[in-house]
Amino acid sequence: MDKVFRYIDDHAEEFVERLRNLLHQPSVAAQSLGMEPCAQKVRAMLEGIGAKTQLLPTDGFPVVYGELSGQGAKTLSFYNHYDVQPAEPFELWQSDPWAAEIRDGKLYARGASDNKGDLTARICALEAYQKVMGALPLNLKFIIEGEEEIGSPSLGKFAEQNRKLIQADACVWEFGGKDLADRPTISLGLKGICYVELRVKSTIADAHSSIAAIVPNAAWRLTWALSTLKDKNEKVLIKGFYGKVRTPHKKEVDALRSLGFDEAGNKKKYGIKHFVKKLKGTALLRKLYYEPTCTICGISSGYSGTGPKTVLPAEAMAKIDFRLVPDQSPAETVKLLKAHLKKHGFDDLEVIPLNGEHPARTPIDEPLAQIVAKTAQQIYEKKPVVQPTSPASGPMYMLCQKFGIPAVSTGIGYAHSNGHAPNENIRVNDFIAGIKHIAMVVHEYGQRA
Amino acid sequence: MDKVFRYIDDHAEEFVERLRNLLHQPSVAAQSLGMEPCAQKVRAMLEGIGAKTQLLPTDGFPVVYGELSGQGAKTLSFYNHYDVQPAEPFELWQSDPWAAEIRDGKLYARGASDNKGDLTARICALEAYQKVMGALPLNLKFIIEGEEEIGSPSLGKFAEQNRKLIQADACVWEFGGKDLADRPTISLGLKGICYVELRVKSTIADAHSSIAAIVPNAAWRLTWALSTLKDKNEKVLIKGFYGKVRTPHKKEVDALRSLGFDEAGNKKKYGIKHFVKKLKGTALLRKLYYEPTCTICGISSGYSGTGPKTVLPAEAMAKIDFRLVPDQSPAETVKLLKAHLKKHGFDDLEVIPLNGEHPARTPIDEPLAQIVAKTAQQIYEKKPVVQPTSPASGPMYMLCQKFGIPAVSTGIGYAHSNGHAPNENIRVNDFIAGIKHIAMVVHEYGQRA
Repeated sequence: MDKVFRYIDDHAEEFVERLRNLLHQPSVAAQSLGMEPCAQKVRAMLEGIGAKTQLLPTDGFPVVYGELSGQGAKTLSFYNHYDVQPAEPFELWQSDPWAAEIRDGKLYARGASDNKGDLTARICALEAYQKVMGALPLNLKFIIEGEEEIGSPSLGKFAEQNRKLIQADACVWEFGGKDLADRPTISLGLKGICYVELRVKSTIADAHSSIAAIVPNAAWRLTWALSTLKDKNEKVLIKGFYGKVRTPHKKEVDALRSLGFDEAGNKKKYGIKHFVKKLKGTALLRKLYYEPTCTICGISSGYSGTGPKTVLPAEAMAKIDFRLVPDQSPAETVKLLKAHLKKHGFDDLEVIPLNGEHPARTPIDEPLAQIVAKTAQQIYEKKPVVQPTSPASGPMYMLCQKFGIPAVSTGIGYAHSNGHAPNENIRVNDFIAGIKHIAMVVHEYGQRA
Repeated sequence: MDKVFRYIDDHAEEFVERLRNLLHQPSVAAQSLGMEPCAQKVRAMLEGIGAKTQLLPTDGFPVVYGELSGQGAKTLSFYNHYDVQPAEPFELWQSDPWAAEIRDGKLYARGASDNKGDLTARICALEAYQKVMGALPLNLKFIIEGEEEIGSPSLGKFAEQNRKLIQADACVWEFGGKDLADRPTISLGLKGICYVELRVKSTIADAHSSIAAIVPNAAWRLTWALSTLKDKNEKVLIKGFYGKVRTPHKKEVDALRSLGFDEAGNKKKYGIKHFVKKLKGTALLRKLYYEPTCTICGISSGYSGTGPKTVLPAEAMAKIDFRLVPDQSPAETVKLLKAHLKKHGFDDLEVIPLNGEHPARTPIDEPLAQIVAKTAQQIYEKKPVVQPTSPASGPMYMLCQKFGIPAVSTGIGYAHSNGHAPNENIRVNDFIAGIKHIAMVVHEYGQRA
């Protein structure tokens, strides 16, 4: 593989520019911003390495699909996405989120780590492999969707309708990175998600707040309703919410100890004195990996500008994100939430589901998992961390687990990549190393076949 | 007075244009928007009717002061303000809030009713009176401040430092209007106010919401804290909050019955099925006039744009407006609030007082009150409603009550003026009638002297 690595080093500058070019293109699915041009750019990148491509329609934004035939019988798929999170709040970025500025060896852009960096690294890896080694040792498929950041609402139906296209022996999942100790981290599962918007409208229009003595207030209705969902001890109070949560086996709990989670480093990273409930050790990691969450992602009501405005708000809105663990389901979570609000007298709150995904897990003895871990150790010269699941979510169930395809997640991020946040970034060296890692994974998985 | 009325009718169009000209000038104290040019415009309007004017500095925006000498010994003052509420949310306005568009006999603009309409009506009344009758029958003072909508933070000190300038036998307070039955409404007092911003910061920056399993969430901290302030039965839970609330005398409760509050009409106006706690009758009016409030005027945290964004918000903010009744005070309210938050474990919430005003009351037998009511009946041909207090707030205590000056509030608004809300408006006919009313008040109060 040395020749492949040399090719990658020789073309490093060109590969970084290829990534920057993709990052210049906004592609925010939540805001329908730049999606079509971004899909075309990605398709052209795949064509550039010789893939046969299709832009496959879905009920939402299209899937960019690509195939590369190789010599072996095995088929490996890459799942990635070309959409990114909204870049707001813009004022907290040190440089334009679409400028893809490089400072001190770091590339800053919305989507740099999630997920255009990984997508580009995989494309570059296949270019390098083919240029140096000729044919690939297996067949490769790219499934690149445009709705991951809004919960992949169309991907489940797409997968059902394109079973043959998506079928593979294993799937390299979209993302991954290094922890605070710079150890490569590999994930074998994802939490599910149930994301809802709560809306309440109490009066025809905003009014002078002096009348608030006798006229209902949407902001208070929302506040009272939210406060019934979770208590100060982080316990979700929705009846039945924990009913289908699997208690982890001893083996699964023991696995947490080997993760070497850096509590002090993580506290410093987030600028906090304590984790919630002052948790530490195994209890902290059980909460992170095996327990579901209920998170307010946003609230808005009335006036939030400068100075005082004495207004009685007519409307209030909150966005809530439940992260689910096996065997919870998004549909049941919505049902339980609605029943809870009704029971507590909050019939006036509208529940608008914005996305839902099942949790998913891949067995620890899956061959792809072992190859990804072994090659990561060779590339990064550190023992990798294998997580039983990521605390994040994605459509792994609907695209892989449901069809018997094992999925393993690995990528080029690091502990300060600021995914979903201002100043998202990757280290340029991680990007180059990630290209080599993927080239090795393809090579080894191909040998095995 | 017929000749004065004829002058007003003959100049109606010109007076309306004078008001529109003033409304074109934004003057949002909360946003430091257009304040200086607006003060200059108001000063020029006073000069235009022969007043000796001064632009008096304060710690904030200046007070426009004007004097007109007349023949009697008595002195009447007018208290008004040239600042207005922010116009946001702009998208809910049917026409530009600064365009002062007239549709169906109504003039739509931010400040039309609160308070540029009243200010202009008073100036026009004095012009008409002088043009027709010659000298005024008393001395007149205009005290026009620029910070009423942000709680008059500089007016108390200004009044202390300019005791001689502000001294008067009585004061016509800034605002008033008609109720749903179109009866002119006169107020003899104001609630106090304590307006605070609550802020909490839980992490260095927004983060990916998957980590919310173990990292504190500013939006939850704020939600939990707010839910301890007031319960679903509208009871404020802050210890000591009701301690200094005066229980109304039987006479004061009886006075509520004569108000003829239109419950059905008000429910329709706000688009509500019930008032809070399903209150009605005297209990409803006691709450409106004699009880303090705790109102969320705004909340903001995290992402509130389109679609889902899975973010753990670093910061959260709420604006809270307490309306106070005798003998509550804003400073004590802040103290009680801080103690409450500390007691409930919310030391992480910052309390930022944005304004504070004491409640104030004028005795019902004050001569100016009787003159304002009598003349209102003559102008509007309806028996006026005399409220023991307005449910709204203002600096009546610091400018009048503290110096023994009785104040009576009357004005040109109506039940759908939408004060502090989108599509604020006045009826043009009310504006013209209001000019006549003020001319009569000046005449009668002058006769009495």
